[in-house]
Amino acid sequence: MNDPAVDRLCALLAIPSVSTDPAYADQMRAAAAWVADHLRGSGFEPRVMDTAGHPCVTARTTDAMVADPAAPRVLFYGHYDVQPPDPLDLWTTPPFEPTVRDGRLYARGASDDKGQVMCFLEALRTYRDAGEKLPCHVTVLIEGEEECGSVNLPPFIEQHKDELAADVVVVSDTSMWDADPQRPVPAITYAMRGLVYFDVKLHGPSRDLHSGVYGGSLANPATQLVRVLGKLLDDDHRVTLPGFYDDVAPLDEAEREQWRQLGFDEAGFLGDVGAAPFGEKGYSTLERRWSRPSCDVNGLYGGYMGEGAKTVIPTFAGAKVSFRIPADMDPKKVAAQFIDWVHAQDVGGCRWEITDHAGAWPAAAATDSPWMAAARRAVEQTSGRPPALVREGATIPIIADFKKTLGLDTLLLGFGLNSDNIHSPDEHFALDRFQLGVQTHAELLRQIAATR
Amino acid sequence: MNDPAVDRLCALLAIPSVSTDPAYADQMRAAAAWVADHLRGSGFEPRVMDTAGHPCVTARTTDAMVADPAAPRVLFYGHYDVQPPDPLDLWTTPPFEPTVRDGRLYARGASDDKGQVMCFLEALRTYRDAGEKLPCHVTVLIEGEEECGSVNLPPFIEQHKDELAADVVVVSDTSMWDADPQRPVPAITYAMRGLVYFDVKLHGPSRDLHSGVYGGSLANPATQLVRVLGKLLDDDHRVTLPGFYDDVAPLDEAEREQWRQLGFDEAGFLGDVGAAPFGEKGYSTLERRWSRPSCDVNGLYGGYMGEGAKTVIPTFAGAKVSFRIPADMDPKKVAAQFIDWVHAQDVGGCRWEITDHAGAWPAAAATDSPWMAAARRAVEQTSGRPPALVREGATIPIIADFKKTLGLDTLLLGFGLNSDNIHSPDEHFALDRFQLGVQTHAELLRQIAATR
Repeated sequence: MNDPAVDRLCALLAIPSVSTDPAYADQMRAAAAWVADHLRGSGFEPRVMDTAGHPCVTARTTDAMVADPAAPRVLFYGHYDVQPPDPLDLWTTPPFEPTVRDGRLYARGASDDKGQVMCFLEALRTYRDAGEKLPCHVTVLIEGEEECGSVNLPPFIEQHKDELAADVVVVSDTSMWDADPQRPVPAITYAMRGLVYFDVKLHGPSRDLHSGVYGGSLANPATQLVRVLGKLLDDDHRVTLPGFYDDVAPLDEAEREQWRQLGFDEAGFLGDVGAAPFGEKGYSTLERRWSRPSCDVNGLYGGYMGEGAKTVIPTFAGAKVSFRIPADMDPKKVAAQFIDWVHAQDVGGCRWEITDHAGAWPAAAATDSPWMAAARRAVEQTSGRPPALVREGATIPIIADFKKTLGLDTLLLGFGLNSDNIHSPDEHFALDRFQLGVQTHAELLRQIAATR
Repeated sequence: MNDPAVDRLCALLAIPSVSTDPAYADQMRAAAAWVADHLRGSGFEPRVMDTAGHPCVTARTTDAMVADPAAPRVLFYGHYDVQPPDPLDLWTTPPFEPTVRDGRLYARGASDDKGQVMCFLEALRTYRDAGEKLPCHVTVLIEGEEECGSVNLPPFIEQHKDELAADVVVVSDTSMWDADPQRPVPAITYAMRGLVYFDVKLHGPSRDLHSGVYGGSLANPATQLVRVLGKLLDDDHRVTLPGFYDDVAPLDEAEREQWRQLGFDEAGFLGDVGAAPFGEKGYSTLERRWSRPSCDVNGLYGGYMGEGAKTVIPTFAGAKVSFRIPADMDPKKVAAQFIDWVHAQDVGGCRWEITDHAGAWPAAAATDSPWMAAARRAVEQTSGRPPALVREGATIPIIADFKKTLGLDTLLLGFGLNSDNIHSPDEHFALDRFQLGVQTHAELLRQIAATR
C-alpha cells in the first residue's frame, strides 16, 4: 500500500462530518468538497448536489476515461457522514484526530463508512496513478445522510435515475467473514433483513395518580403496555401477530447446508457479548439472524424512572418496538398487522399513540448473476480464497431502493468487522483490510468488465 | 373560628420544611422548633428529639394538665415535613407564602399534613384558651420524615415505647367522605392497604447491541422484561403469582352492603381523571380499591427513550412494580412469592437485579371498639351527621407499627380531600374544614374520655 492513500483517508477522517447535528453543517460541506476533490484527482468532474438536507457528491466517468465504451456500468454508493463521537471521554485518542496504533487506524468513520468508501475511491485512483483507463463505466454516489436515515436519498435517486443508470451497484459498508491476517476471508452479502419500527405510547388517566388511591380500579397504561407487548412473542419466541409468518420464505436445505459449511462460531459470537443462544425454536443462531424475522423491544419509558420508589400510576408509558424482516416480507404489511393487533387489545379505555418510523424493505440479490461471479473472482484474486456468501441481519434501506427505482442488484463487498466499534468509541479500521479493500475493488472493476 | 389559629397555621406553612432535600435542613429544625413552641403555648413541655434523620417533636401531658388522672391516654401522630414544591411555575401564589382565596388556604403542606396536624394542636389550644383541663392524657408525636419514608420512626417508636404508651392512636392525615359545606361528612378510615414495591432490572448482553445484527439470536432484556411482567396479571386482571390470594380476606356481605350505602360516585371518581372502571372481575370500583389487592407497573426504563428510532438491544431494562395488599396479607410473603416467580421465568440467561423497597403492612382497626364509637359520636356532634366508615386503598406504613410495637389501634380521622392537590402545585385546605377539624378533635378528646 502506498502511504499517500492512508494520508488521504486520514485527511477525510479529520473532518467531523456528523450529519445528525446541525452544528456540523459547515463540516458536512467540507467533507463533501473533500470527496469531490479526491474524485477530481482521479480524473472525474464531480458535482456536489444539494438535497433538502446534506449534499450528495456524484461523479461519472466520461467515455474517454473508460477502456471500452461497451463496458458494464457500475454505480458505487457510500456515505461521507459519520455517527456522533459521544461519549468523548471513552476514546483513547480524539475521534477526529486519526491515529494509527498496532496497524489499526482509529477515528470516527474509520470503518463506517469513510474507510470503506476510500477503498473504492482509492481503487479508482490506482488506475489513474498507473496511467490506465478504467475497465468499466463508473458512477459514484456518496451521500451525507446515511447516519440520520437517508431520508432525502430515495427522492434524489428517483429524480436522477437517468444519470444513475447502471448495470450493478457496488457498496462497501459491510463486514468480512474472517479477518485473520494470515487467512482473510472477505464476504459478499447477498441479502439483508428489512425493518419495521414503532414508538407505541399508551395514554391513560389525565394526570399521574397515586397508586394506593387508584390502584386496581382503572387501567394503568404502564401495566397495560407491558401486558399487551408481553403477548407479542409466544413461549417458542415466535411473533404472535396473525399472518406474520405467511410471507416468510422457508430456508432451503441447500442454503442451510452452505451456511453450515461457513463454520460460524456461535459460542464466540454470543459469548463475546455475554449472551447465550436464545430464540425461535428449530433454527440455529445464524439462521435466526439471517433468515428469520425478529421482534425486539428497543426501549421502554414512562412513570417513575429514578432511584427508589414512587407510587405513581403514570399518565402514559411507551415503548420502542421493532421487527427485522427477511426477504419476501413486506414492511407495510407487517406494520398494518402490528397496528391492527395492538388496537384489538383491551386496554381498558387507554389510548394508543403509535408512531411508525418508516420501515425499510428487505433486500436480496441473485447469487447466480454474472456480477456475483465477478465479485467472487475478484476476492479469489486478491485474498487467495473464495469469499463467504452471507446474509446480514441488519438493514441498509437504500439497497431496496436501488432495486425498486433503478432495477439493480447490489454487490455488498465490505471490509469491516463487527469488532470495528462502529457507532462506538475507538472506532477503527485495520490498515491491512484497507489495503485488501483497495486491491479487491480495483480487481472487481476488471472482473466486472470481463463479464461482457 | 378564631383568626389567630389561621395565623398560626400560616406561620407554620411559611417554613419550607422539605424533608427530602438536604438543603432545607435548617428549615426542618425551624419547623420542629415552631411545633414545639406551639405545644409550649398550650401548656406542654415539648422535646425536640434527634433521630438519625430529621428530629421528632414529642410532648406529653402532665397529670396536672388532665381533668381526670384515670382518663384514657391518646397518642397523636402527624408530620411537620412537606413534599418538595416543584414545579414552582405551576403555583398561582408561591408555595411558602400561604394565601387565602375563596375560603381556601393555599400553601405546600396546607392539607398534607401541617393543616391537619394543626387541627389537633389547635384543639388542644382551645382547652388552654378556655382555661379547661384536657379530658384525656395526650402524647403528641410529630415527625419530620413522613414524606421521605419515615425510615427512622419505627426504631424511634421501639426505643421510646414506654413514653409513647397509650390506649389509642389518633391520626389526622386522611380524607373526608363528602366536603359539601352544606352537608359535610367526615370519614373514619378503619383499614388501609399495605405496600410491596420492587425495582426489577433485567441485565442482558454485556453492552448495547445492534438489533439488526443480533435480533432474534439472544435474549433482549427489554423484550424479556415485558414478556415476564406481562404475565403478572391474567385476562381477568388477577395477579398470577401462585398463592397470592390465599390470605386475602373475602369481603363480607355486611361490609359490602355498608359500602353500597355510601353512594360512592364511581363515574365521577374515575371520570375526573379521564378513566373508566377497569379491574378484577366481580368487584365494584370501591371494592377494588379498598378490599382487593392490586398490582401496578409504576415505571419503565431502559434502552432508547428519546425521540425517533434507535435500533438497539439494550444491555438492561427495568421496571418499578408494586402491589397494594389489603388486611391479612403479609408483605414479606408477597415479596417472596414475587421474587420466586420472577426467578422461575426463562429469560434466556439474562440476570435479574431485584431491589425490594421495604414493604409496608396493611392496617385495620376494629370498628366495634369504644374508640371508634367515641370518634363516631364526636363527628355527629360537630358535623350533625354520622361519619362515613371507610377503608383506604393507600398506605400509611406507620399505622401498622403502632399496632405491632405499641399494640394500639389507630383512629384515622381526617379532614383532607382527594382534590386538595397534595404533592402537587396549588395544594390547599379549606378553612371551613380546618375549623371543623379543630372542633371535631376537641370533641373527640371529650368523647374518648367518656368511654371510661
